[in-house]
Amino acid sequence: MIPMRKENLECKDLERINSFLYQEKTGFLGLVDDKLPYVIPLNFVWFDGAIYFHGAAEGRKVNIIGENAKACFTVSANQGTLTDPVPAETDTAYMSVMIFGEVELVAKLEESVKAMQQMLDKYVPGYYDKPLSSSHVEKYRSSLGSRTVIYKIKALEMSAKENPMQLDKLFYHGKTQHHDRTR
Amino acid sequence: MIPMRKENLECKDLERINSFLYQEKTGFLGLVDDKLPYVIPLNFVWFDGAIYFHGAAEGRKVNIIGENAKACFTVSANQGTLTDPVPAETDTAYMSVMIFGEVELVAKLEESVKAMQQMLDKYVPGYYDKPLSSSHVEKYRSSLGSRTVIYKIKALEMSAKENPMQLDKLFYHGKTQHHDRTR
Repeated sequence: MIPMRKENLECKDLERINSFLYQEKTGFLGLVDDKLPYVIPLNFVWFDGAIYFHGAAEGRKVNIIGENAKACFTVSANQGTLTDPVPAETDTAYMSVMIFGEVELVAKLEESVKAMQQMLDKYVPGYYDKPLSSSHVEKYRSSLGSRTVIYKIKALEMSAKENPMQLDKLFYHGKTQHHDRTR
Repeated sequence: MIPMRKENLECKDLERINSFLYQEKTGFLGLVDDKLPYVIPLNFVWFDGAIYFHGAAEGRKVNIIGENAKACFTVSANQGTLTDPVPAETDTAYMSVMIFGEVELVAKLEESVKAMQQMLDKYVPGYYDKPLSSSHVEKYRSSLGSRTVIYKIKALEMSAKENPMQLDKLFYHGKTQHHDRTR
């Protein structure tokens, strides 16, 4: 129901892509562990042409990245099921973005602070009354036992697709407005 | 904010996992294209210990599977952001499931019909007044120009994690019930 190969679904509107990536809360980071795929759900922010996320400085993800940093970061939102009198034509309204690049550690404190601030602005807007301090991020990056680091994926390639909502086909509580069940 | 390495977040309640996979609409299929990761959002159903989805009988996904059928299928739901007086302790309530296996084509018509019926039951429950006929699925599988097939991933390995919601920490419109902004 998500026919990614349909070229006419391609979305090239960067403003729309930016606002989609701002709004969506979970991204799926695909990595390659030798020949095995590994897909991790993550909170993230998107700015300056890169995906930023944070995570532990150790663990399977970190080990994989050390061997192969290639990444595919996918974000998708289901915006409803679109009905059709022909069952096989049942479809999904969605938007999705795929970003390809390499995972790298953010080494600069200033860039880490900026990424963390963007995370707070996205996930808990208005919750803190002061901007994040560098010393807090520094402490956070170096905490013994639970050291956490900021990673980024600069988008080397990117594709976005959208299958727009059609209100008259939208499935809702067993029927649509049309209520056309013939087949 | 999704610390997958925390072992105490592991969920072993199969009934809970089943109902989560029934409820969630989008899964993320991770594949390996040579050494490159590729993550595709898909509609899916989960039954008899396998993920089923459908897709075109041609395209990049099919080419990749022909070379390397190894798959990681991840489903995750963000259930809210959990605030904390310490910014770095901001957390996410979520549930996620990762399924590892290999993508295979469903060759048997009977199994294809069952999978398609489960798709309809999940995505458009109550919309059709008759069950799906074998002839409809057969026609659908062999349509010229847009041949579509059913794939499955038998779960060889599976892991589920859950960071439960804490209502008193849940972020909602700029604050929580506690409204504790000190740091």
